Amino acid sequence: MISAKTIERLFLYRRLMTDLIKRDTRFVFSHELANMSQSSPAQVRRDLMTAGITGSSSRGYDVVNLKSRFDEILHSSVQKAALVGIGNLGRAILSYFPHRSPAVEIVAAFDSDSSKTDRIIHGIRTYAVDNLDQVVHQTDVSLGIITTPKDAAQTTADSMIVAGIRGILNFAPVPVRVPAGIFIESLDLTTSLEKLAYFSRRPH
Amino acid sequence: MISAKTIERLFLYRRLMTDLIKRDTRFVFSHELANMSQSSPAQVRRDLMTAGITGSSSRGYDVVNLKSRFDEILHSSVQKAALVGIGNLGRAILSYFPHRSPAVEIVAAFDSDSSKTDRIIHGIRTYAVDNLDQVVHQTDVSLGIITTPKDAAQTTADSMIVAGIRGILNFAPVPVRVPAGIFIESLDLTTSLEKLAYFSRRPH
Repeated sequence: MISAKTIERLFLYRRLMTDLIKRDTRFVFSHELANMSQSSPAQVRRDLMTAGITGSSSRGYDVVNLKSRFDEILHSSVQKAALVGIGNLGRAILSYFPHRSPAVEIVAAFDSDSSKTDRIIHGIRTYAVDNLDQVVHQTDVSLGIITTPKDAAQTTADSMIVAGIRGILNFAPVPVRVPAGIFIESLDLTTSLEKLAYFSRRPH
Repeated sequence: MISAKTIERLFLYRRLMTDLIKRDTRFVFSHELANMSQSSPAQVRRDLMTAGITGSSSRGYDVVNLKSRFDEILHSSVQKAALVGIGNLGRAILSYFPHRSPAVEIVAAFDSDSSKTDRIIHGIRTYAVDNLDQVVHQTDVSLGIITTPKDAAQTTADSMIVAGIRGILNFAPVPVRVPAGIFIESLDLTTSLEKLAYFSRRPH
């Protein structure tokens, strides 16, 4: 079992490989990869070992080989995601995310406000939130993104889980309860900024 | 020195107190606070002890007293933030964030595209990025939010630090290097979703 932190870094390395391939760079050293990923060469070598990549030539690691190996580990099949809550943040994610990752595609967005549904927003079809269960099943969605106001976050998570969603990214500024076996990650902009404010005002 | 994780929870508790006060709730038990914050009663009591709050009556903790104590610890003075990168994500934050926190106020936004500057967007004044240093000094900004494309993230962070900003929230999907004494937090939507995709597809 590879740890969550390592998986995060492998996804980052894969993105860096994609960039290097675009720039026709063929080889990369662990210290260069460390520099690009804000890590240490020892950490990079450990991660590559975990990924089953050992040894590099005097020219460094072959970029295309690394990329293929990362694809293998991280799976190259796309997983589908549904977003609930088409406010400003939801719209921003719909506009920002497409084509950012080969691993995830947002295929549907939901809202309880009928003026926002049955439309195409940034290329993504929007539905009434009552149709969540049906659409998730029909389109084989496995990931959910919550961008609702905080009062709707828990019921949205509950509906997602009932519909069969197993991984949830929560942007609502409130903790959400999920049963065991469901993976949840919260990105709370407000708390992040507040923490930053607290720590950046004191001398280090 | 209170840990970053504890500070995060204290900010959350403070927000919960604000909600309770709005609903005219006068007392709260640690197990209720634990439930609202997705924590344990033991963790809540430990956090309150760290904050210098000991003992509760049979009715629980006094909500207004807790709130004042949190205000004291977390400082109630506002810190000013500047956002650089007025794309979709930047705009969403400008529209979403105001009035979310008593600790942070976004006072200026910057972009290199002159069609986006010298305007008011969601109540916030926008400037050419060349004016960053001047505006940060004049308005006493201490926090920076990076919502630029990834290629501009590092130079933006560098300019922020030169201008005197000491805490940075980075949304660009690329790691950013900062010197010691500067506090940085990265919220990378892409990596978060990819990690979620990876873990939610395997059986637990």
